[in-house]
Parts: sequence; C-alpha cells; structure tokens
Amino acid sequence: MVMETKITVLDKPKLNNPILIEGLPGIGNVGRVAAGYLIDQTKAVKFAELYSSHFLPFVLVHENSEIALLKNEFYYIKGKKGGRDIIVLIGDAQSLDQIGHYEIAEKILEFVESFGCKEIYTLGGLGTGQLETPNPKVFGALTSQKMKKKLESYGVDFSVASKLGTIVGASGLLLGLGKLRGMDGVCLMGETAGFPIVTDPKSAEAVLKILMKILGMNVDLKTLDQRVKEMESFINKIENLQRKAVEEMTRGVQKEGKEDLRYIG
Amino acid sequence: MVMETKITVLDKPKLNNPILIEGLPGIGNVGRVAAGYLIDQTKAVKFAELYSSHFLPFVLVHENSEIALLKNEFYYIKGKKGGRDIIVLIGDAQSLDQIGHYEIAEKILEFVESFGCKEIYTLGGLGTGQLETPNPKVFGALTSQKMKKKLESYGVDFSVASKLGTIVGASGLLLGLGKLRGMDGVCLMGETAGFPIVTDPKSAEAVLKILMKILGMNVDLKTLDQRVKEMESFINKIENLQRKAVEEMTRGVQKEGKEDLRYIG
Amino acid sequence: MVMETKITVLDKPKLNNPILIEGLPGIGNVGRVAAGYLIDQTKAVKFAELYSSHFLPFVLVHENSEIALLKNEFYYIKGKKGGRDIIVLIGDAQSLDQIGHYEIAEKILEFVESFGCKEIYTLGGLGTGQLETPNPKVFGALTSQKMKKKLESYGVDFSVASKLGTIVGASGLLLGLGKLRGMDGVCLMGETAGFPIVTDPKSAEAVLKILMKILGMNVDLKTLDQRVKEMESFINKIENLQRKAVEEMTRGVQKEGKEDLRYIG
Amino acid sequence: MVMETKITVLDKPKLNNPILIEGLPGIGNVGRVAAGYLIDQTKAVKFAELYSSHFLPFVLVHENSEIALLKNEFYYIKGKKGGRDIIVLIGDAQSLDQIGHYEIAEKILEFVESFGCKEIYTLGGLGTGQLETPNPKVFGALTSQKMKKKLESYGVDFSVASKLGTIVGASGLLLGLGKLRGMDGVCLMGETAGFPIVTDPKSAEAVLKILMKILGMNVDLKTLDQRVKEMESFINKIENLQRKAVEEMTRGVQKEGKEDLRYIG
Repeated sequence: MVMETKITVLDKPKLNNPILIEGLPGIGNVGRVAAGYLIDQTKAVKFAELYSSHFLPFVLVHENSEIALLKNEFYYIKGKKGGRDIIVLIGDAQSLDQIGHYEIAEKILEFVESFGCKEIYTLGGLGTGQLETPNPKVFGALTSQKMKKKLESYGVDFSVASKLGTIVGASGLLLGLGKLRGMDGVCLMGETAGFPIVTDPKSAEAVLKILMKILGMNVDLKTLDQRVKEMESFINKIENLQRKAVEEMTRGVQKEGKEDLRYIG
Repeated sequence: MVMETKITVLDKPKLNNPILIEGLPGIGNVGRVAAGYLIDQTKAVKFAELYSSHFLPFVLVHENSEIALLKNEFYYIKGKKGGRDIIVLIGDAQSLDQIGHYEIAEKILEFVESFGCKEIYTLGGLGTGQLETPNPKVFGALTSQKMKKKLESYGVDFSVASKLGTIVGASGLLLGLGKLRGMDGVCLMGETAGFPIVTDPKSAEAVLKILMKILGMNVDLKTLDQRVKEMESFINKIENLQRKAVEEMTRGVQKEGKEDLRYIG
Repeated sequence: MVMETKITVLDKPKLNNPILIEGLPGIGNVGRVAAGYLIDQTKAVKFAELYSSHFLPFVLVHENSEIALLKNEFYYIKGKKGGRDIIVLIGDAQSLDQIGHYEIAEKILEFVESFGCKEIYTLGGLGTGQLETPNPKVFGALTSQKMKKKLESYGVDFSVASKLGTIVGASGLLLGLGKLRGMDGVCLMGETAGFPIVTDPKSAEAVLKILMKILGMNVDLKTLDQRVKEMESFINKIENLQRKAVEEMTRGVQKEGKEDLRYIG
Repeated sequence: MVMETKITVLDKPKLNNPILIEGLPGIGNVGRVAAGYLIDQTKAVKFAELYSSHFLPFVLVHENSEIALLKNEFYYIKGKKGGRDIIVLIGDAQSLDQIGHYEIAEKILEFVESFGCKEIYTLGGLGTGQLETPNPKVFGALTSQKMKKKLESYGVDFSVASKLGTIVGASGLLLGLGKLRGMDGVCLMGETAGFPIVTDPKSAEAVLKILMKILGMNVDLKTLDQRVKEMESFINKIENLQRKAVEEMTRGVQKEGKEDLRYIG
C-alpha cells in the first residue's frame, strides 16, 4: 500500500521528558475542546501532522475556499525553565474502521516515543445520560497503581471503574498500547450528558482544572466558554459534514429504493 | 498482497511541466464527460492504465464480446510549441472502499509527479437539488490563495465555499494529498441537479469553457451535446452494471429471506 | 500479514504449453460441476492447493470426522503424445470480500504462468431466470477477437454480449488480469435458470461438450447425470454450511434483538 | 501497517515436545472455562501475550481502575519428569473480522511451532439447542484418522461428524492450518445448549475429564463449579462490554434516526 498512516514532521523540537496530552473528537468533545483551549492559551507550536487512509476519504472546504485533508496535529508547549515539556495531540477525526484505530495509535506512540515521551494523559468524556450536571466530576483510569494516590489528591475520582467497563478509540488504545511500550498513562474523563454532537464546555473545564493541577501549569480559564463556542461551530461543522458523507456513502446500501444504489457519492 | 493498485505504462512520453486534469465518475458525471470530450477533441494519446483491487471484482463485456477490467486511464495532450503539456485522467470507476480512495489517489500523484506534474485541476459536479439550471455556474475550491484572483477573472465562483463543506473521492483527495507533495490544485465544480445517473452535458460544457480559458486552449464545443449522448449510454451502462453487481453482492446480506443468503453472486 | 493467499505445491509436473480450465462455485454451479466431471473422467492428478484468508474462517468436518480448510485445487491432465497439457482449477469457495477476488486471481495466474500457461478457459453459468431450458446454449466472452471465429464454429454463441454486461468473480477476473499478462482467454457460460443452489447438470453438459470439441478431447458424458447427483450433495452441503456460517457471523448485526448481538458466533 | 498481530514474549521456557490446548471464548464458553480452570489448578505459568488490531479497538477497565488491552495469553505446564509439557492458550477475544481469524491462527501456530509443538487440542462447545443436558457428551473432529481409536477409547464421540458441518474460528482454523504444517490435532466439543452468554460448567467438566484422561493428567475437578462462577462474572462482563461497544460502533449505521449517525462512538 502506498499510504496507510503517515506523519509529516514540520519541525524537530528538542523536548525535555515530554508528556503527551491527547484530545481527539469523542463523547461531548470534552477532550477535543480541552486540548484545543490549552493550545490556544499557551501559544503551543505545531510541529507535526498525521494523515491516514483510515479517515473518511474527503477533503474539507474552508471558508476561504481552501481544501484540507482530515488530520491529527501535534503541538508542543515548552515547560518553565528546566521543567518538562508537553506534546498536545488534537485533530478532526479518529479512524473510521477498527484496524485503523490500532494502527494510528501505534504510529502516534512511535512518534512521541522518539521525543522521549514516557507519560500520557488522554482526555475524554464519560456519558451519564443525564441532561444537567452542575459540577461535573472527573473520573480516571490508569495503566498502573503508582500514580493513583497523587491523582486522587488532585480530585480524580477512581471509584467508578466498574461502571466504565471500556474506553473506546484513541483515549483507550494510546494507554493500552503505551503500557506495552513501558509508558505510564491516565485517562481523565469529565462527566457529561453524552448525547451526540453536544459539546460540553463545563466538563472540559473540569478536566482542564485537574490537568493544570497535575502538571503544575497555570492557564486562565476565563475565556473558555467563549472559545468553546467558537470551536464548537467548527467542530459541529466537521461532524455534520462527516455525518453527511457517511450517509451519502452508505445511502445506496441502506435504502430500499434501487434507484439510489450508487457506490460513489 | 499480490495486487492492490498498479499502473501499466504503455508509453513514456517526455512532458513539459504538465498539468493533471482529472475527470472520474461522480455527481452528474460532469468531470467524466468534460474530460472525455477533451480527449476526443484534442486526439489525446493514452499512455498508461491504472487497475485496482479496490474496484468492483468483475469484468465488463463489450458489444464485440471482449472483456475488460475496470480501469482508469492516463492520456497526454502536447501543448503548443514551448507550451505546457496536459495529462488527462479518466476512467470507469472510483474505489469501492474508503482506504482504496487514498491509495489510488496516492498512486496517481506518484505517477504524474514522475513526469514533473505540479499542478492539478479536478473536475466535478456540485449537486444543487434543482431540476433546471439554465446557466450553470462553475464553483471552485483550491489548495492555496495564490491562484484565486486569476481563476475568478475567468469566472470561477469561490463564494460558496461554506456550502461545499467537503469534496468526496478523487476530486478532493488528489488536491489534499497533492498539497502535501507541494502541488497546487483547483477543483472546478459545475452546478448540476445532482440526481444519480443523470449525466449533465450543460454543466460539463460550463466547466470545459472555463478550463479552456484557464489553459489557453481552443476546443470546439459544438459537438459536445452529441458526444455526451454517446458517452452517456456507455457511462450509464457501466453504472447500471455496477449497481446490479453491488446489489447482487449485497443481496444475501440485505434480504430477509434465508434462501437468498449466498455470499457468492 | 502472516497469511493472505498461499499455494501449497504437492508436485511440480513438467507441462507442455498448458491450458487453464477454471470451474469454481458460481451460478448453477455449472463450471464447478463441469470441471469436477472432467477431473473424474480423465483421472487428473492433483498437484497444488490454494488457501486464503479471504475464504470463510472455518473448517469443514467430513463424514469421517476429519477437518479440512476451504480450498481451491489444481489438477493436471497430460495431453496425448506431443499434445498440450491441461490444468484444471476447482474448489470449495471464492473470496468472501472484494479485494480477495483480485488477490486470489493474481495468485492463480502467477502460479499457472510459472508452468508456461498462456491460455485460459473459465466455465460458468448464465442465469436466464427461466425454469426450463431443454437445450441450453453456451455463450462466450473473450479477451480478443482472434479466437472468435474458431469458437463460433464449435457452437459458442457470441451474440448476447450486450446482455452479459459483466462477469463477476474468478471467471471474469482470471480473463481480465490474464489479458494484462498477455494471456488469451474465453469464458464459456452455459444457459441456466440461475436460481441459488440449483446445480444444473444439463448446462454443465452443454459446456463440456463444446469444451471437448475445442480441446479435441474425448470424454464420455454418459455418467455425468449420476456423478452430478453425487457432487451436488457435497456442493450443496458446503453451500448450506457457508450460508449458515455467514448467518451466524452476521446474526448479531442483522437482528434487532440486543441479546443476540455477539460478534463471535 | 505498524501493527496487525503481535506476540509479546515474557519468558522463553524450554518445553519438551509440548501439546497446545486452546480455550478461547466461544459457544457456552466451554473451551474458555475448561482451559481457565486447567491453568488455575496446575499453577501454569504465563510466558507470552498476543495482541491484535483484529480485536475490538478499546481497553477494558478493571475494578482497580487499571486498563488492559484485549489479549490472548500463553501459559505452560511442565509435565511429570520426562513427560511432555503443555501450552495453554486462553484469552478475552477472537478476531472481529474474517481475515483476522486466519492471521491470528497462523501467528499462534508459528509461535508454538518454535517451541517444538506438533499436537493440538482445541476445546469448544457444540450447541444442541436443548436447555438441559444432564450428562453432556464430548464430540470430536480431527486432522487424521490415526488418533481416532485411542480417543474413542477415552469416550470421545466421533459419530456426529455429519451434524457438525463446520467449526468456526480459532478451534477450527488452528487444526486446519496446523495440518498444513504437519501438526496433528483434535477438537473436543462438549454438548451444550449453545445460547449466547450462557457459560456451561457441566459441559466444560465433561471436556476436562476426557482431556485429563488423554493427557494422563490428574486435576481435581471438585472446585470447578465455584471457579466457573467466578470466571463467569468476568467473562460475562467482557462479553457485555464487547456487545455494548459493537452496538455503539454500529449504532449510527443501523439506526434510522439521522441524529444518531456518528461514526465515532
């Protein structure tokens, strides 16, 4: 195959014992929004892009008529002098198919490992099915017991493991496959309604607050609400387009009417 | 794997800074018909064929009883003395599955890049859902702002980017993946009804007119209507056969009746 | 991948300019039955087996409790002194997925090419939808015009090309991909009802009669009816089992009831 | 591809002519439960783990909040002095897709072959559709006739081959693909109701009793009932989670409502 998943490196920064923070699209877009805001506020620098044939086979058309492939992006944030650096992974999409999920997670791990990364925080939402959650909790799952005490002291709730059951997609596989590589990791999940296409800034804020404590960072969360609104319209646009594209591509197979059975949209 | 996507080279022409023009099957078959007519009128020379296991697993049977694999074809048109040459890509089919779309687009780019190609025009239709469009517009999306002004002066409409959202399949991916290789590109989309299996010669004519202006070419469009009718019957035949084959292959899985559940057609 | 499609060679016969005859399962099992009878009557010798991960993931259990993978088999028939030899390809199954069809056909061609094979006859049925066809015709499609006259003189009917449209699976792809390798080939299709799981010995007899004329062979067709009955019960058993297995594997996804949604049968 | 199926070796024991015993999830979880109990009682030592991108793309979250990839596991049991050693293969999952079944089986065989393994026992259930089976029989299928007599003398029933038809997944493919490598093998199937998610300890006990006789081992079966109850809750949890994950992943495509069509869970 000519292409499966490839990472285009824009810059090769020297990073000090970096931590990976992942925030790809998912339930309530909690991780996506939290990671996006973090990048904004810290003026993080993009240094690599990931493309994959496991993403939907189309390009997005932006307002200025420019086209763009679906992608994931790597940013770095330099730590305070002598402190650890951070790699933030955000993006438009996750794999469309099962095998791609593993392949992309492995590519990401291989890449951040080359910068010396040994610690991973994946951010996501935990759908509760309840419309209102005034003070969303942040639940955790991890690769080993050794960080549990410290994380509990920052407010991460490990009491609901039995209710979690599974963590689907990048937030889970980065930890599971990372563990095989000797990496430590935690998944931080903000309590959220969990309905499709409802971006939840409150839950993202709760996750960010705890993440800041853990990392000893100081990020102003005052503008989060406003920024989430801006991001939300972009994220929802992509989600709508993806939904339409999936509909279009599966239309023929799903519909009864024979006239509509076209395998190309 | 023995075969995924391969290009059979019939001739290795020396091409001068060639431009790729893509016209594969799609909405209203606008691109397909426009590229087909261009090949006819300029007596373009076929120099390569692309085969892929991502096309439907059957052969076509022509009127003379000869069989033929589904394929894409590369033609070249020599420019006026000292001028740039053109590569035209047409074909019977696009990938049946998501991953194949990326793979085939990459193979095409790799191939045309080996002839020095750095500029791409993909042709397609933009479905409006309206039955009648007396004077179809030509909309554009592009890889960078630098060609926008020039293209607008030729009548390309860049005002509807927000409505486009996505460009699915080869017309989108050739631009997106080409951009990663440093290629410039534009997708020209003729306004069309967008109903399945309705070939739209008027929309193809609108696209061709603008493309001719951009390329400084002179192609007689008088016989377009007649040629489109001829092409239409062939294109519709292929589409019908593909539809039937897809139906046949998915029949077992879709129907309720157990007697019909056969995994081979 | 550890395994995709592989051919296990039992014997490396020296073959004189051999002709490939393919008879895999398909419409009315015409090709399968014709090739099976040919093997029986000529005491053809098995010299290779093909296995593929594109076949269903199970083993058959035979009456004597022995298990067997799904497979295709290569037999050879030595020609009369100085005459051309024949390779016969039969089997239990064709690819379950689209990409596998291409891969398996390429593997087969690569293999028979290594014995010097340059000519292919694929055998199949052409479904007419009519219950009774007292004197089934044999229709043909081919890779080039050069054999047409000769074949017509033996009774092959090339008048219905326009009705054929496509030839799905191995019978089509072996010819299409073979043509790319410079091989000549013909698909002989016996007229048959085309209902699923109705093996049609009359149609197979019609195909065999013409094939014998073409190859200048003499095979007694008197016992065909009886042998087809025997083969039919085995072929139908495999088809039933495959149908059940596909049902079992897709059960979860198809049924509404949640309790049945198990991804392993 | 970065990852398809890989085996992580924890220890490289020297094994004496080892026998492979497979007990992966399947009908009534007979094999899984039997192999699990065998490991428990013999204090078998884990020496390798198998991971695959053909398993569902998620991690399990255990009670202690630790995450774990889906996996298969290899244990060894040292035989009595001079006797043959045993490799036991258990696990959480089988391949989600058809091709993965072949790939994983081949990886397993390649791995155990490197320890000199030439004999395989796969354990499973044979669904009868009857709720109560007070004295479940143990049915057998095998790679060759040579072990049949001996196995019959231990109580394995080979009389129902014609009813078996096929053996789907690892229990079948390990034998079929193993046979190609010159390995001998038997599938032992305990009679069981065969309803989804009903773990059947009685059937597992019947299989274990016969397996112990064949291997000349002595394992106390008194605590089987209790251990099965413990295992059952874990196995059912995984099955429920997998079912939910499959539901979540296929939700969009299956449901009619457009609002739910999300390709990421």
